[in-house]
Amino acid sequence: MNRRSSFNSASRQPTRTGSYTPSIRSLTRRVPTLSSAEQGNDEATTSADHAINEEIEEIKRYEDFTTIDWVQDAAREQLRRKARRQEKAGFFEREGGIGWRRKLWDSYDAGQAWIVVTIVGSAIGLNAAFLNIVTEWLSDIKLGHCTTAFYLNENFCCWGAENGCPEWKRWSGFWLWNYILYILFATIFAFTSARLVKSFAPYAAGSGISEIKCIIAGFVMKGFLSAMTLLIKSIGLPLAIASGLSVGKEGPSVHYAVCTGNVISRFFDKYRRNAAKTREILSASAAAGVAVAFGSPIGGVLFSLEEMSNYFPLKTMWRSYFCALVATAVLAAMNPFRTGQLVMFQVKYDRSWHFFEILFYLIIGVFGGLYGAFVIKWNLRVQAFRKKYLKSYPILEATLLAVITAIICYPNMFLRIDMTESMEILFLECEGGHDYDELCDRKNRWRMIFSLAIATIIRTLLVIISYGCKVPAGIFVPSMAIGASFGRMVGIFVQHLHESFPSSAFFAACQPDVPCITPGTYAFLGAAAALSGIMHITVSVVVIMFELTGALTYILPTMIVVGVTKAVSERFGKGGIADRAIWFNGFPFLDNKEEHTFGVPVSQVMTSNVVILPATGLELRNVERIMAENKYQGYPIVEDVGSKILLGYIGRTELRYAVDKAKREQLAPAHAKCYFTPSPSRPPTTPSSSMPAVTFDTIAATSAQMRLDLSRFIDSTPLSVHPRLPLETVMELFKKMGPRVILIEYRGRLTGLVTVKDCLKYQFKVEAQENPRDEHALDEGQERVWSVMKRVAFWFDGRLNDIRTKLRIDRHQGIELVSPTSQGSSLERSRYSSDDGTSVELENRAERESAGG
Amino acid sequence: MNRRSSFNSASRQPTRTGSYTPSIRSLTRRVPTLSSAEQGNDEATTSADHAINEEIEEIKRYEDFTTIDWVQDAAREQLRRKARRQEKAGFFEREGGIGWRRKLWDSYDAGQAWIVVTIVGSAIGLNAAFLNIVTEWLSDIKLGHCTTAFYLNENFCCWGAENGCPEWKRWSGFWLWNYILYILFATIFAFTSARLVKSFAPYAAGSGISEIKCIIAGFVMKGFLSAMTLLIKSIGLPLAIASGLSVGKEGPSVHYAVCTGNVISRFFDKYRRNAAKTREILSASAAAGVAVAFGSPIGGVLFSLEEMSNYFPLKTMWRSYFCALVATAVLAAMNPFRTGQLVMFQVKYDRSWHFFEILFYLIIGVFGGLYGAFVIKWNLRVQAFRKKYLKSYPILEATLLAVITAIICYPNMFLRIDMTESMEILFLECEGGHDYDELCDRKNRWRMIFSLAIATIIRTLLVIISYGCKVPAGIFVPSMAIGASFGRMVGIFVQHLHESFPSSAFFAACQPDVPCITPGTYAFLGAAAALSGIMHITVSVVVIMFELTGALTYILPTMIVVGVTKAVSERFGKGGIADRAIWFNGFPFLDNKEEHTFGVPVSQVMTSNVVILPATGLELRNVERIMAENKYQGYPIVEDVGSKILLGYIGRTELRYAVDKAKREQLAPAHAKCYFTPSPSRPPTTPSSSMPAVTFDTIAATSAQMRLDLSRFIDSTPLSVHPRLPLETVMELFKKMGPRVILIEYRGRLTGLVTVKDCLKYQFKVEAQENPRDEHALDEGQERVWSVMKRVAFWFDGRLNDIRTKLRIDRHQGIELVSPTSQGSSLERSRYSSDDGTSVELENRAERESAGG
Repeated sequence: MNRRSSFNSASRQPTRTGSYTPSIRSLTRRVPTLSSAEQGNDEATTSADHAINEEIEEIKRYEDFTTIDWVQDAAREQLRRKARRQEKAGFFEREGGIGWRRKLWDSYDAGQAWIVVTIVGSAIGLNAAFLNIVTEWLSDIKLGHCTTAFYLNENFCCWGAENGCPEWKRWSGFWLWNYILYILFATIFAFTSARLVKSFAPYAAGSGISEIKCIIAGFVMKGFLSAMTLLIKSIGLPLAIASGLSVGKEGPSVHYAVCTGNVISRFFDKYRRNAAKTREILSASAAAGVAVAFGSPIGGVLFSLEEMSNYFPLKTMWRSYFCALVATAVLAAMNPFRTGQLVMFQVKYDRSWHFFEILFYLIIGVFGGLYGAFVIKWNLRVQAFRKKYLKSYPILEATLLAVITAIICYPNMFLRIDMTESMEILFLECEGGHDYDELCDRKNRWRMIFSLAIATIIRTLLVIISYGCKVPAGIFVPSMAIGASFGRMVGIFVQHLHESFPSSAFFAACQPDVPCITPGTYAFLGAAAALSGIMHITVSVVVIMFELTGALTYILPTMIVVGVTKAVSERFGKGGIADRAIWFNGFPFLDNKEEHTFGVPVSQVMTSNVVILPATGLELRNVERIMAENKYQGYPIVEDVGSKILLGYIGRTELRYAVDKAKREQLAPAHAKCYFTPSPSRPPTTPSSSMPAVTFDTIAATSAQMRLDLSRFIDSTPLSVHPRLPLETVMELFKKMGPRVILIEYRGRLTGLVTVKDCLKYQFKVEAQENPRDEHALDEGQERVWSVMKRVAFWFDGRLNDIRTKLRIDRHQGIELVSPTSQGSSLERSRYSSDDGTSVELENRAERESAGG
Repeated sequence: MNRRSSFNSASRQPTRTGSYTPSIRSLTRRVPTLSSAEQGNDEATTSADHAINEEIEEIKRYEDFTTIDWVQDAAREQLRRKARRQEKAGFFEREGGIGWRRKLWDSYDAGQAWIVVTIVGSAIGLNAAFLNIVTEWLSDIKLGHCTTAFYLNENFCCWGAENGCPEWKRWSGFWLWNYILYILFATIFAFTSARLVKSFAPYAAGSGISEIKCIIAGFVMKGFLSAMTLLIKSIGLPLAIASGLSVGKEGPSVHYAVCTGNVISRFFDKYRRNAAKTREILSASAAAGVAVAFGSPIGGVLFSLEEMSNYFPLKTMWRSYFCALVATAVLAAMNPFRTGQLVMFQVKYDRSWHFFEILFYLIIGVFGGLYGAFVIKWNLRVQAFRKKYLKSYPILEATLLAVITAIICYPNMFLRIDMTESMEILFLECEGGHDYDELCDRKNRWRMIFSLAIATIIRTLLVIISYGCKVPAGIFVPSMAIGASFGRMVGIFVQHLHESFPSSAFFAACQPDVPCITPGTYAFLGAAAALSGIMHITVSVVVIMFELTGALTYILPTMIVVGVTKAVSERFGKGGIADRAIWFNGFPFLDNKEEHTFGVPVSQVMTSNVVILPATGLELRNVERIMAENKYQGYPIVEDVGSKILLGYIGRTELRYAVDKAKREQLAPAHAKCYFTPSPSRPPTTPSSSMPAVTFDTIAATSAQMRLDLSRFIDSTPLSVHPRLPLETVMELFKKMGPRVILIEYRGRLTGLVTVKDCLKYQFKVEAQENPRDEHALDEGQERVWSVMKRVAFWFDGRLNDIRTKLRIDRHQGIELVSPTSQGSSLERSRYSSDDGTSVELENRAERESAGG
């Protein structure tokens, strides 16, 4: 129905025979005159259409868990643009001068995108500065306080001084009391964060990257990018990080940045209605989010390209570039660390690398791949467990995790401090003077290797259980920290090797009497490897690492390490943790990275018993009955049920709207006949076919409520394909063109209908056949873990009777949540795909995946 | 015809009624059993099909100036993969063990891409090292020679010594003699290069980026990526650069890299037949080409993404990454400059920038945009002039240009030396000790500003006339050199300002008594701006500049400058010089960067009087007559000419092949009847429909040469759309899915056909209507310039009678070329689009573009 008005001249053919050819010829002749002769008429139709369009758009915005039809969206935008152009032309012609007014208007119209991107970028930059400052302060307050002003963190309190100052005091002189306070603060932070998330914005939990990927691809998730989510994510994130949980800020940064983009773009007319344009802004915001999180503008753009967007035209790249630039510039101007640098660490390596070191780089690369595969596999199992058993205890879970993390991490020198800080220390060359806890000391070597190994293992386990708990939580920085500790360990080991066998042929490239191995560079490469292993991204990792540290000479080693990591991780499964989470949650998302060979025609996958609407003669009550009986997102229109000649397609929303409007405004009775003909193919009984344009508004007067012309609501040119077209081509069409549905047409007749979900279901079925898995053992294992956990909980419950009063609030919370009825505000991920019967397979497959992958 | 065999079960329905529904149902039921029950049969069909496929593929490879149908290509690849899988399964089952043999085979099959990419990368790296060494030597030989060994350049001759050594001698002590020798060498180099290009590989001329863009998008240009082109480009490039022409090596690097990729991948089975896979390798090679040219691996990948490929899936990115990595690593291992660095210059800026400097960065950014717009506009005019008048004098032109360049450039200190070298000097900080010709000296400031301004202007003019002449020639480095000289000029001016008013409020951010302004950074930013201005790329420029110099602190300024440049250049026209050259040459390339609002249905653009073939009863001689009468690339198949029910589409190549084969093998008489039915819809007179699979080979025995079943050659599922689908959506389909033709179908009936060219023609028409241009004045101007040039030539001809003997070879060449008949080997660019009548518009439009743009 949206495209129709632009083809009015065609639909105004008074009669149409079966053959289309003559009318086409006349169309070709007539249309060129359209802009002049028919303009006035067109304008009237357009503005009426416009209003209806707006209303339907408004409704569609709030349809949760549906996908956007990009083809329709684009068509609608074309129409809108054309209408605006005509309107404008009319306006300016009336005004007389076609000069500066029009130019001004044009440039505002063209520049609107830039205005939005600038505002969004600035907002993201400001928010990032705020977050950085708050996070630093909260992290430091766990250890001590500033006596001159409580709101200063250690750095600002001791401004200018090296290695601490008397104004900054630890909480007490006694280590145990410090330890307890540390745990207490961590608990409070985690509790607050989880509580805020649960009460105000359940969507603010987790990293959000998977969901945003789906949203950018066209999935609608109401509230996921709302202002409330933005607020809670911005408050909850510093708390979560300061609580010491093994979570990072990069994923959540992307989320709050995209929220910002969404919230701000809503104020602009252009974006309120056009989904495709909004997606551009969202992609750009995602880039800015990564840019400010890492202080890496180009890395952000590439991340948005490589990970976030399945379709990334150059225009979007350019928007992302600009948005990241603005955000980073604002952050630089705010200068939150007062170091003049965007990032918390910047290292310069004086020495170059040697070719023999590539051997060790390979080890680091392999580690990255294995780390990624291991964490993804086990984290998904933990997620499945969480979904099954811990769904009702989000706050308790996060709080307990924080306590456990604090207890375990405090004793290890690398785990105690902030992850970013620990990375900074690990990246440093030994020849700088800054020697944290004698890391570079030769006699400490084995102690350091041991300590780093412990840190690597513990942090990995913590990441597996922490990522996905119900506080804002990313996985970038934890992964990098793990990689850095592993890398530094390797580096120290290699250094030791070299110093033990300085004259060996292997080390021949080393110059005598000067340090040859720089363990800091191994840490740097380890961080790159782990990041690449967990996210399965390559180019962006190299650029991010590069922008983080400016280590130009190490670009080849970084590329080698990341390349090896990528090769290893591809052995173990497709897609990084974000992609796997998408499968796990069963979002309808066709992954661009995958390539399939099914070798079947689309007819084998399509739904062939489609609910169809005949173009003429269907009574209003029947239409309503059909809509009530099923939940399909739309219905094909056919000439009649017998011949099934395809005429068009009507979306559920449009049909609902049209029917409601007819009943409300026209007082149409239940037995009124509905007409869906895109252009009347046979003369109806009423004389309306001779009128210039049979619109909804004019019909009321002529046919006394008995004839409902709904033709303006149908899409008369849905994408349709031949039933024998290969499934792969159809999937390409879905991926690249993004329609919601593709109709299967054979010789003009409808034979079926296919959606993204049909394709995914088939894909899952094929994959399940190829890799059958045993879920039973896993379920049993989960059950056993859960029973152990329950027993521990009961034991604690008995023992901690005396201090229960202290934790009253927390426990109250716990009891409240034991009730098996799931609450409205709790995050019901299973709902994502439950709007029709298909969710079962998706869900099952997700669990299988997590189990065996 | 290619897809057919995979859907055999459907086509084996003995009878087919008008309604398709029952057969679909049986299809759905039957196909799941296909892999087991029908495998043997399938295998036989597949291998027969296979052989025919191969032959047709082989023919298609040599069809010049056509486009690849990506949809068909993908379908064919799916089929091939399936066939191979079955074949393999059969083979290994016969072998008994499904174990390591199969695994080995699988990994070879999967790894083939990596093997190819590794070999290609290494070859590109080696070639780059060779080119670098030869270019350096040739450039130096113009000025002097090494007395110890003639084959050493100045650097190697004086290894270890600073500022020259006695072993390296200038040709003589007398400056005029040096000047003359300089000009002489330049002339010889340019002549040799042009001569080689003309005689052996005309396609080796120019940069090749536009053509490669089209090739990667699916355009077939025979010989453009041949081994000969590779060889000549590799030899001609150092000569062209050493001749001192204002040309760079980056564009040609991309070209020789892509040639390498093409030549090497031809040795592998997988790539010989699959166009899409070959394109992946070509994209990867392009990335490696830029990577080695700039020593910037990530920059190369991004360049390939941003500029070269209109479709860049992540898999290609990953291939490009790997290819660029290998090429760069090989280059680094070869270490052609013996500096341990990949690039010829690497600078470190100690000082950071100040916010007030953004003002000057804006100026540099604006310069970049204006420079790009100016050079593109005038270079295209020069190209048009060249095409019209100088087409027959390629060698003379290049040689004369080299002479003029040498005469003009020698006196200016920045123009005399190699462009890369001059950039290195301009980028340097003043506080390093290396002061080329007192560039940093305070008292020389105004002289330097003047000298740099002259250099900027002269180089710009030279680039305009040189780029596009018939030697290997890029525009990256010349643009960067121009930008650097302009930037340095601004930098020196700002430094002067600061030193004149050190206490002004504007310079408040400067610390007293230390240098505040670094003119080298302005040169650096200027280079980035000019590069971005000419190519209209953003992200890759930032990354390339960054990798060239490692100036991490200057990433924000670089982004600002490039952003401003991009904004300015978008005011002046869409697309960089490569895109404009594509339009200019009239290649059928739909630009991804453009977005149009036509607001017309596709029916207005389509060709409606299509030559169609009826499915049954057409005599062989009629088929041949139809093919002889027109040059269409393919013909739709309809049930009969009256009803026009669409059944499929047959490509010209396939039809030609089938007809030839029938005549050769079957001795089919001219009145034999051809059948194109994808699945016989009514029982034919012969009993062949009851046979399991009516293939070409079996038919000969049954129906005595009178019935030709060509059904296996047709594509039974061509993409078809509704006539009222918006043109924009159809263009999206072309861009994203890449079919060669889209059929327009209304209710099962063919109503028209649309190709990329139809879309482009319409687009050009609309644009021409919007911006009417006066070509007459321009033509007159060109005519006038040409007459002046002729007069000058005659004057010279008279005057230089005495030294004519010296230039005998050259003049002989000139005379030979005056003959108006164009020669076979000369580059006839107009031929690109001349295979049907449509070229006229494209050409006209191209000239209009170049005239008014």
